[in-house]
Amino acid sequence: MLVTTAPSGWAMDSAIATGDLGLVIERATGSLLVVDRSDRAAIGRVEGLGDLSHASMTYSPDERFAYVFGRDGGLSKVDMLTRQVVARTIQAGNSIGGAISDDGRLVAVSNYEPGGVKVFDADTLELLADIPAAGKTIGLVDVPGRRFAWTVWDTGEVFLGDFAGETPAITLLGNAGINPFDAVLTDDAHTYLIGLFGEKGVTAFDLWDETPEPMKFLKDYGKTSDDLPVYKMPHLQGWAFTEGQFALPAVGQHEILWVDRESLQETGRTKVHGQPVFIIAQPASPYVWVNFATPLNDVVQVIDSRTREVVETLTPGKAILHMEFAPRGAEVWISSRDDNRVLIYDTRSREKLAEIEADAPSGIFFTARAHRTGL
Amino acid sequence: MLVTTAPSGWAMDSAIATGDLGLVIERATGSLLVVDRSDRAAIGRVEGLGDLSHASMTYSPDERFAYVFGRDGGLSKVDMLTRQVVARTIQAGNSIGGAISDDGRLVAVSNYEPGGVKVFDADTLELLADIPAAGKTIGLVDVPGRRFAWTVWDTGEVFLGDFAGETPAITLLGNAGINPFDAVLTDDAHTYLIGLFGEKGVTAFDLWDETPEPMKFLKDYGKTSDDLPVYKMPHLQGWAFTEGQFALPAVGQHEILWVDRESLQETGRTKVHGQPVFIIAQPASPYVWVNFATPLNDVVQVIDSRTREVVETLTPGKAILHMEFAPRGAEVWISSRDDNRVLIYDTRSREKLAEIEADAPSGIFFTARAHRTGL
Repeated sequence: MLVTTAPSGWAMDSAIATGDLGLVIERATGSLLVVDRSDRAAIGRVEGLGDLSHASMTYSPDERFAYVFGRDGGLSKVDMLTRQVVARTIQAGNSIGGAISDDGRLVAVSNYEPGGVKVFDADTLELLADIPAAGKTIGLVDVPGRRFAWTVWDTGEVFLGDFAGETPAITLLGNAGINPFDAVLTDDAHTYLIGLFGEKGVTAFDLWDETPEPMKFLKDYGKTSDDLPVYKMPHLQGWAFTEGQFALPAVGQHEILWVDRESLQETGRTKVHGQPVFIIAQPASPYVWVNFATPLNDVVQVIDSRTREVVETLTPGKAILHMEFAPRGAEVWISSRDDNRVLIYDTRSREKLAEIEADAPSGIFFTARAHRTGL
Repeated sequence: MLVTTAPSGWAMDSAIATGDLGLVIERATGSLLVVDRSDRAAIGRVEGLGDLSHASMTYSPDERFAYVFGRDGGLSKVDMLTRQVVARTIQAGNSIGGAISDDGRLVAVSNYEPGGVKVFDADTLELLADIPAAGKTIGLVDVPGRRFAWTVWDTGEVFLGDFAGETPAITLLGNAGINPFDAVLTDDAHTYLIGLFGEKGVTAFDLWDETPEPMKFLKDYGKTSDDLPVYKMPHLQGWAFTEGQFALPAVGQHEILWVDRESLQETGRTKVHGQPVFIIAQPASPYVWVNFATPLNDVVQVIDSRTREVVETLTPGKAILHMEFAPRGAEVWISSRDDNRVLIYDTRSREKLAEIEADAPSGIFFTARAHRTGL
């Protein structure tokens, strides 16, 4: 096993390609660790990104630039080649995520304080559009055709914004329900799924439809009882789509729910180790990998989507916060915050291949995300 | 509209990222045009690749190197950063395609003369394994876990080669039928589909199964009558998978067949302009795009996979040989061999955005393919 350290000075390679690079969020220090998938190594660090205690990012189509969305409302543009912050703006008081348009020209950020969506030029970070909302904005996703969809926590409103023309065209698609907490778009950009916290159920919109209607399902799913505290709201970006099914986290429960993709009917449940946080499909496989909320967050489980049975229980380290697969699924990189390590597992043998030192790592983001819809 | 030319000398950018680059095969001159998706421009040319009259390629995980498989048995490694051939070997008398392992360490080539599969070190192009076959090898695909699958035209044998261990483990999976002409792996690496020319039908193997069995379907599909000449064998790598369906070319017919992905039952047919060559799903959309065999090869049709109806008929140019989508589907690049042009269309408006001069272009390959399984 290889353990690499992250020294303070890295040599810059004069000619590198970026297709196998990634960034690891070091949440305590507001820094990003630059990693190389092929070498299974850290190759640099970028500092000065502000509050990264709940951060995410997206990549430009050339896989050169990362757009980092920080909790403090900071939008930072990071150059993977020079490993520097090349632009940064504090665009709101509290941001929770963002997305990049399918042509790579627009970066949209969803905000809590004040609520709404801001759209920036991907080159310059110049503000191009400021779309207010009547509350906190959640579940912002890119939709093909230079569009974005988002949802408002306070009102349940679901919007589709079209930025292909001279001026933005914002359409109210409908109402998802009471207190939507996150939303996700399926990988074919077909179905926008919205999880509800204020009532039971999930709401789906068919974005291939010219006039999509809200379809509620899993009406006995969600926040099913008040006696179970929700330690961590699950991330719906981790919802897995495999074998014609959605695998959904049962909020506050130690369960995963399986829903048929066509009928939106529940097809089964799987008892798991704790409250699911991320449920992520291993690419090109029948497996989904799950991590869990505190205090049961030292375990990762692997489930076969055909049998819906747990086939492996791993204990990779302390405080497992995130998992990121190599785009063709050969490896999974797992962040162990309290061990200050990123752990690399072979997905076939499920054996650990390597470790990388990192400072309280949380999210891991490979540049291959540049080529995927709905992230 | 922007028309860019390809001058003989390009300036090398000192720092470029490779995520939005691609190569266009110039079949008459044995050269590759380097293109930049974001700039919609040609940015260089690589020469000396031998006979590219029927060529394909794959990319390394870092999107830096292309492995080009030429008709003359040449395997060439091209550096996208320096735009040079950095390694080349004539590894057989006649090769028809290749694949790269999921970890990017192995490049496999399938050959006609002599038949078989050769496996090379992706770094050095050193020969690592030479697996003979009792005939011409077709339908070579990468399978997760450092594996490849391939099929033998003469015998119908289907093999799975496992290269994860010290020595290759080659397993005969079964017999596909009489004269399989091409094969393809679904994007989830679940189903290996083999088209038959010597008998009616298609054969599927479930590669998620430990001991996959051949499943024949569409038994009235394929070479249905002797009176219709087959102008060009369709490429099964172009088979589209959308809306729970496969869209398959009817060999020798002016038709596309739709098959349910689960049941393998035919669900419908679409009359089209000519004999389909490539049927390619527009990413994150309900649409598939089709081009046609000579003499009807000046047309591209767009079909809605929900209604299975032709929704657009385009006449982009003369001798349309290939189409390649931006990975998130915003654009499609179309090669018009006899107009010496690559045509770029917006997939939402279906309007032409730009043209690029190219010398008798055929295949277009974007680096984003590095992150996809089964190509």
